[in-house]
Amino acid sequence: MTIEARTDHTEEVKPLLEAGNEPALKELLSELHASDIGRVFSNLDDDEAVRVFRLLEPELASEVLLEVDERLRKTLISSISSEELIDVVHEMETDDAADVISELPLEDAKQVLEGIDRQESIEVQKLLVYPEDTAGGKMQAELASVPEDATVEETIEEVRKKSKVIEHISNVFVVDRDRKLLGTVSLDKLILAPPKQRIIEIADREPRMVGTDLDQEEVTKVFQRYDLISLPVVDHDGRLVGRITIDDVVDVLEEEIFEDFYKMAGLNIEERVMDQPARSIWMRAPWLFVNLGTAFLAASVVKLFQGTIEKFVILAVLMPIVAGMGGNAATQAITVVVRGLALGELSLKNARWILFKEASVGLANGLMTGMTAGVIAYIFGVKPIVGLLLFLAMTFNLVIAGLSGSLIPLILKWFKVDPAISSSIFVTTCTDIGGFFTFLGLATVFMKAGLL
Amino acid sequence: MTIEARTDHTEEVKPLLEAGNEPALKELLSELHASDIGRVFSNLDDDEAVRVFRLLEPELASEVLLEVDERLRKTLISSISSEELIDVVHEMETDDAADVISELPLEDAKQVLEGIDRQESIEVQKLLVYPEDTAGGKMQAELASVPEDATVEETIEEVRKKSKVIEHISNVFVVDRDRKLLGTVSLDKLILAPPKQRIIEIADREPRMVGTDLDQEEVTKVFQRYDLISLPVVDHDGRLVGRITIDDVVDVLEEEIFEDFYKMAGLNIEERVMDQPARSIWMRAPWLFVNLGTAFLAASVVKLFQGTIEKFVILAVLMPIVAGMGGNAATQAITVVVRGLALGELSLKNARWILFKEASVGLANGLMTGMTAGVIAYIFGVKPIVGLLLFLAMTFNLVIAGLSGSLIPLILKWFKVDPAISSSIFVTTCTDIGGFFTFLGLATVFMKAGLL
Repeated sequence: MTIEARTDHTEEVKPLLEAGNEPALKELLSELHASDIGRVFSNLDDDEAVRVFRLLEPELASEVLLEVDERLRKTLISSISSEELIDVVHEMETDDAADVISELPLEDAKQVLEGIDRQESIEVQKLLVYPEDTAGGKMQAELASVPEDATVEETIEEVRKKSKVIEHISNVFVVDRDRKLLGTVSLDKLILAPPKQRIIEIADREPRMVGTDLDQEEVTKVFQRYDLISLPVVDHDGRLVGRITIDDVVDVLEEEIFEDFYKMAGLNIEERVMDQPARSIWMRAPWLFVNLGTAFLAASVVKLFQGTIEKFVILAVLMPIVAGMGGNAATQAITVVVRGLALGELSLKNARWILFKEASVGLANGLMTGMTAGVIAYIFGVKPIVGLLLFLAMTFNLVIAGLSGSLIPLILKWFKVDPAISSSIFVTTCTDIGGFFTFLGLATVFMKAGLL
Repeated sequence: MTIEARTDHTEEVKPLLEAGNEPALKELLSELHASDIGRVFSNLDDDEAVRVFRLLEPELASEVLLEVDERLRKTLISSISSEELIDVVHEMETDDAADVISELPLEDAKQVLEGIDRQESIEVQKLLVYPEDTAGGKMQAELASVPEDATVEETIEEVRKKSKVIEHISNVFVVDRDRKLLGTVSLDKLILAPPKQRIIEIADREPRMVGTDLDQEEVTKVFQRYDLISLPVVDHDGRLVGRITIDDVVDVLEEEIFEDFYKMAGLNIEERVMDQPARSIWMRAPWLFVNLGTAFLAASVVKLFQGTIEKFVILAVLMPIVAGMGGNAATQAITVVVRGLALGELSLKNARWILFKEASVGLANGLMTGMTAGVIAYIFGVKPIVGLLLFLAMTFNLVIAGLSGSLIPLILKWFKVDPAISSSIFVTTCTDIGGFFTFLGLATVFMKAGLL
């Protein structure tokens, strides 16, 4: 079927659900892809979702569980018996099973691990050891592997066996007696080789591989850099313990990028748009309180110049322009720098150049917008000297914006802190304080000099 | 080799380059992956990069060209003769060749198209017709396909032929006489089938496919939704014209997400961290000028209440707190909503619920932070009534932040404008104006009532 846009089957499911027509509903569901059912669930309330979920065969149910968010997954799981849950988990690949089990209460997790196939249980327990955001946490234990003395024919037999339980076999791994990884063979090479040839002869003997500890963000970079489809994962002794496939990487990549911008905005990556208000309130409040602190800091700068403002109220009118423009220019600088750091295009080596560049950009845009602002203010009736003041302060503050917008993410990076985290708060504090201080400070100097 | 982190070979290349030791440099380069060479280039100046580039064999040169940014690509291309360029383009897959040729000046593009193999030239010209950000623009014409009456054996022969020119063959496509797509066969199915079986019998007869016109963002969603590795692309008559592979999708996905946040910050997606200052200045200036307009709008609100500020300068000290907190809360709301829209978790259907949710979150966080701010201000010596004013205005402004932060992206989406574009500017204008108006307006009311 040609997919021209995202399809939504909610309108077909709802009437059947309301009519209680379970046979028709079962038939409709069996024809849908798990991801489409997940989409329908996002448009149903929890009771309706549970009713639909209970109609699914274990295999489809196992796939649907992986398509919904953690909260709904918990609700759906708690709606079925432990026997049913064991059947559902049994249908999953080990990495998905480990993810689901790690979310269960300890007692339930134990029960499921005891209920599923013993070998499977061992594999899953091994995976549960690795932190979720590492190569070990992302890999699956299922893979096709053969000993180094296997023939092409025997390797094909291994593919036959494994193709029943694994999707997307694209490589077969060749290992030695200690399961140390010796090479990989892609299926298109395998298909073209004579049956009796030894597999090691057609294997890529220098395959790329990663260790279980590698951070998931680095894993995505390896995939992107070398255009990979799957990547073997080895333990500290070089033994093959799993593989990561590109479909898992795509989700990680998406999450990592959103995480950067979430952090910049003072958000918790766990927050989702459809979360209940109470959850969002608690997740967002801490950052707002930190911001309140910095806002008072900026206000205290204004307070320093209360006397000047008392005499020239027009300063109070114009000062938000200086601070606001600085904030906007700084946001541009941070966004570019954080992206550059994320993509590896910028490193600490280029730090001096970037500072110079961002200061120049700030200076040039400060001169242009500052000049414009000064002229506009003059046209609207302020004294020429106030226009000049606006021009000078804006230019200066946009340089501060460029410097702080690039320096602060770099400093965070230097200290091995995520450069995105709270960059915005530090930087806009700089531009608020910088803007108020320059504008009101200069005004005070001008006033004392009798110019204002 | 185990990849534990990103490797950088600049330190090996530079000394050889400086010593002019071309043979050793050639040998080193031939052992590196194109993506690693691209990384080295980002640490060299243009002259050095050109010198290294000229040492590469056409095949490696073609890969390296795809790893560097557009600016450097132009520099490198202009350093070689048209004959050399033809050799380099000849090594590329059609989609990459089309991308590179589309960047060339018209005369050079013609010369290259005439110079390469005739069949290749026709394929590339076909691809040049599709807009870059559609399925047609992302697909490659190279693929393995067989007629419906082919046997498994014949299909394997097709894989043999095509594996010389295509990387990552994961599927063979089955077509009828008019090249209409009938089905797909994955290599693991192919490997397990008896040689004389008809291929159509083991094909997936309902393969997912997309039309050439589909937007690249939708293409990435199809890949993610169905965990695909490759996806056939068909023209308006259902004829197979190309395929998209997941490695292209990964880059699109990354670009699309960054694009959202670039737009929110008022940046052009073409801007890169290592761009020259002049380029960044011109790309960022337009948005800063728009912002200047809205800043004056907010200032004009302050001007309305000049009389009140004249009597109570403390208002000028506190008003940036109200506006700033609104801006921060709004940024949180927009970021969550834009992400939800990008991931398809939020649609116009849920619009009312989201408005209610964001207003509630704003109200709750406004009450909490507003109360805190009022008490702090009181402790620092303002009159109780000013503390109350701060509390009321902040609460009100955080509700405005929640409403505008969710409503504005939704309205943009409704009008089929990208919900990210300039969301920030509209929303912070709302919170600036809302903050100043509420705080200073309420103060004026209090003053007239004799309370202040």
